[in-house]
Amino acid sequence: MKIAIDMDEVLADPIHKFIELYNRDYGIPLDLKLDAGNEIYHHVPEQINNKWFDYINEKGFFRNLPVIEGSVEAVKKLQEQHEVYIVSAAMEFRNSLEDKLDWLNEHFPFISWRNIIFCGDKIVNVDVMIDDRIKNFIDFKGRPLLFTSPHNLLITDYERVDNWQQVLDKLLVH
Amino acid sequence: MKIAIDMDEVLADPIHKFIELYNRDYGIPLDLKLDAGNEIYHHVPEQINNKWFDYINEKGFFRNLPVIEGSVEAVKKLQEQHEVYIVSAAMEFRNSLEDKLDWLNEHFPFISWRNIIFCGDKIVNVDVMIDDRIKNFIDFKGRPLLFTSPHNLLITDYERVDNWQQVLDKLLVH
Repeated sequence: MKIAIDMDEVLADPIHKFIELYNRDYGIPLDLKLDAGNEIYHHVPEQINNKWFDYINEKGFFRNLPVIEGSVEAVKKLQEQHEVYIVSAAMEFRNSLEDKLDWLNEHFPFISWRNIIFCGDKIVNVDVMIDDRIKNFIDFKGRPLLFTSPHNLLITDYERVDNWQQVLDKLLVH
Repeated sequence: MKIAIDMDEVLADPIHKFIELYNRDYGIPLDLKLDAGNEIYHHVPEQINNKWFDYINEKGFFRNLPVIEGSVEAVKKLQEQHEVYIVSAAMEFRNSLEDKLDWLNEHFPFISWRNIIFCGDKIVNVDVMIDDRIKNFIDFKGRPLLFTSPHNLLITDYERVDNWQQVLDKLLVH
């Protein structure tokens, strides 16, 4: 079985990085929790709510993101039974490309370059897609798994996974 | 219809760049013609035939490649009738990523970031794939069009296009 796995908010955690940068520049509290259905820019004053776009375009933003809990071990286990592809909509952010590849090579060195895809539209031919953004499921004919993130908590139309253990429970054959 | 178009030797011409660099460093003739079925490294002395791998990994290699004749106008015309994706197996060469995207934005600015894919395996869900490497056709279920390049001249198993006018003759609806 072929499985496509998204990066941001699935393998890597940009939200904590955003909060750190907003804290550094504007004093936004470091313990900020995002309300269900909200993006980071819903939680900061209006005059700086586009600032996340500047942050994300800076070289280095994606290079040192925290790894989502349990993802490294889970992807290793999935890889033993399935063909795993990392599929990230990185192409919108030119300066993210090298950072994202370097980050993958550091934290997921067991993923071959053959199995990494940076794209815009996710027109990949796979059986399962694990993603936190439902826009990537629109034309997808396989089985979508919505990986829980604050911004998608109000969505009820898709099979959901809250963490990597739940992914393994659904996709590993015992 | 969705059409995937390869970059190297289809939109961009790395062969002339290789010959220029081999000429600069080792005096290989600038008017070198590749024999049918041969790669550039078949035409240089054995002790330097891996040098192309160094060239290709240098920053800047892919930034100023010549554009393959007729490709810009042809892709524009295809785009009027079809959904065109640029699909390049760039992931093997970390230093090519920014160069390739910058090159596309310079010569094909009418291609959205949504329609650009840098990958390893070309597991894209499209109807037509235009490529000079038959390894990319192996698991492809659509219509492959083999774009002529010296290295593939001896291959007879695929529908072939020798230039961009032939692509238009096959894919444009009149």
